[in-house]
Amino acid sequence: MSTRNRQWLLASRPRGPVEESNFRLAEADVPAPRDGEVLVRVHYLSLDPYMRGRMDDAKSYAAPQALGEVMIGGTVGEVVESRNPRWSKGDLAVGPGGWQEYHLSDGKGLVKIPPGLPESVYLGAVGMPGITAWYGLLQIGKPRPGETVVVSAASGAVGSVVGQLAKLRGCRAVGIAGGPAKCAHVVSDLGFDACVDYKSHEFRDAFQAAVPGGIDVLFENVGGAVLDASLARMNAFGRIAVCGLIAGYGGQDIAVRNVRSILVNRLLVQGFIVSEHLELWPQAMQELGAAVAEGKLRYRETVAQGIESAPRAFIGLLRGENLGKQLVRMGG
Amino acid sequence: MSTRNRQWLLASRPRGPVEESNFRLAEADVPAPRDGEVLVRVHYLSLDPYMRGRMDDAKSYAAPQALGEVMIGGTVGEVVESRNPRWSKGDLAVGPGGWQEYHLSDGKGLVKIPPGLPESVYLGAVGMPGITAWYGLLQIGKPRPGETVVVSAASGAVGSVVGQLAKLRGCRAVGIAGGPAKCAHVVSDLGFDACVDYKSHEFRDAFQAAVPGGIDVLFENVGGAVLDASLARMNAFGRIAVCGLIAGYGGQDIAVRNVRSILVNRLLVQGFIVSEHLELWPQAMQELGAAVAEGKLRYRETVAQGIESAPRAFIGLLRGENLGKQLVRMGG
Repeated sequence: MSTRNRQWLLASRPRGPVEESNFRLAEADVPAPRDGEVLVRVHYLSLDPYMRGRMDDAKSYAAPQALGEVMIGGTVGEVVESRNPRWSKGDLAVGPGGWQEYHLSDGKGLVKIPPGLPESVYLGAVGMPGITAWYGLLQIGKPRPGETVVVSAASGAVGSVVGQLAKLRGCRAVGIAGGPAKCAHVVSDLGFDACVDYKSHEFRDAFQAAVPGGIDVLFENVGGAVLDASLARMNAFGRIAVCGLIAGYGGQDIAVRNVRSILVNRLLVQGFIVSEHLELWPQAMQELGAAVAEGKLRYRETVAQGIESAPRAFIGLLRGENLGKQLVRMGG
Repeated sequence: MSTRNRQWLLASRPRGPVEESNFRLAEADVPAPRDGEVLVRVHYLSLDPYMRGRMDDAKSYAAPQALGEVMIGGTVGEVVESRNPRWSKGDLAVGPGGWQEYHLSDGKGLVKIPPGLPESVYLGAVGMPGITAWYGLLQIGKPRPGETVVVSAASGAVGSVVGQLAKLRGCRAVGIAGGPAKCAHVVSDLGFDACVDYKSHEFRDAFQAAVPGGIDVLFENVGGAVLDASLARMNAFGRIAVCGLIAGYGGQDIAVRNVRSILVNRLLVQGFIVSEHLELWPQAMQELGAAVAEGKLRYRETVAQGIESAPRAFIGLLRGENLGKQLVRMGG
């Protein structure tokens, strides 16, 4: 075991797009657990769009990431030292470890991983992104069989689960994604009924053709022009779960023009943060885990190698360069 | 009784702001009721913002107003001839009479007015506008005592009821209205805690000062920049009832910029049409009528005289020239 713990700190807040210089790689001693604590060696770090919001010093639902501190992030890893009776050396644990190779925990927020599935799935389809999909689709969207569900960022960690859960409930699932490769993956590998490339010049016509009966449930991850295109096609009494607005993370204009659709179609639009609904996580994880085990819920991972690669991989995620869940596999 | 029935027809659809030339005054014979029908002589015609939407040939929740037909509209009047056993000559009735001096009804949608209150109130505080306020505030906004409720178009027929109902439920009621006279009326006569003039150069600062604890419930009648200002001040888990978007009726841009607030503050935003919730009208009318009778719910009317004045009064309503409920008192 190394005695050094490499960590990415937030060095500066982005002005516009995130740059590698916003992060600084530091080294600390691997800490020793005190009474009640465990030391976890991280195997995988999860990179997620919400981190972009935390990098700003703006009013939001969560406090901003502090400058000079280890970047926040979900991790999965192995207990290498325990002074907590509930944990043993060798246990696999998912928790908020941050962008570093080792982290200490008093057990709060640390969840033991049951055997059976690959550990990385607890950062993706059976972890926070999958539960986000589950919550927004089922608790807000409430799709009924035969309805049309549209999800933006469809090839991502959240969107890919949304569409598959919609299919499992007898809905028509239509994805929106950037580029033909992602769209092909969404249809061929994930089983969506259709996927529309928002970067294509034929986007409007293709989208219209993909939702001939209009949209009943929209799971919104992007915002901006893509959201407007969906708003224009919503059916009466449609539901919109607002999960993310990636389009605005770079400081771009995300004005929405088709607000009138909310009134004309009597829509329900609701924003949500999945971490505020922890009481539903066990149920969601059980359903998602069972679906993965049975082969009914598929997922793809894009894995960057080594902690050094984290900022570059994160910037790629914000640019949409990943397919499925973006992870960093720690070298240690 | 006159034998002629004057009527305003829709002559052409507006391009931009409504003009008097969009309407045409016609005359027909006063019709004779057939078996099961009643003839109503209209006392008051209600003018409402929703009519603007119907004048366009656009996809909406209701079919467009047909060209060459009598303009739709709510009316209150007196049964002058009845061949329906449920109605007698002299009964007062509220119903969808349209912009005309007489209308026939088979009784569908016609409601008998109980004695006690002035008949015009059934087109305002105890009619469709009041029930709209009641539904949006209580069924969507669900305000709790101590919360802050903001309503745009606060001096109008709907907004004035929203704020007063909020006060009756122990909330802080803040109005947004155009001009110092309307704002003074909203505070002094209707008892709101504050009212902010959106036409003032100090709007932003005044609005901020009026909602020191943020906004928990927004009842939105206007859209556009006023909606953006409210979105920026919403509290976590706030509710927005979308009742109208007057700002866009003239074809103006009503893009909304602060969409991110829906996500950041986990807002619930819901559009509604009160006529789709007829099952709640008796309860709403009973509560609103009792509040008016007890002097707890006040209302103001702007009354134009004679059917000739209807288009001009309607254009004034869209420009915000009225105070409270806009009515036309028929001359006949």
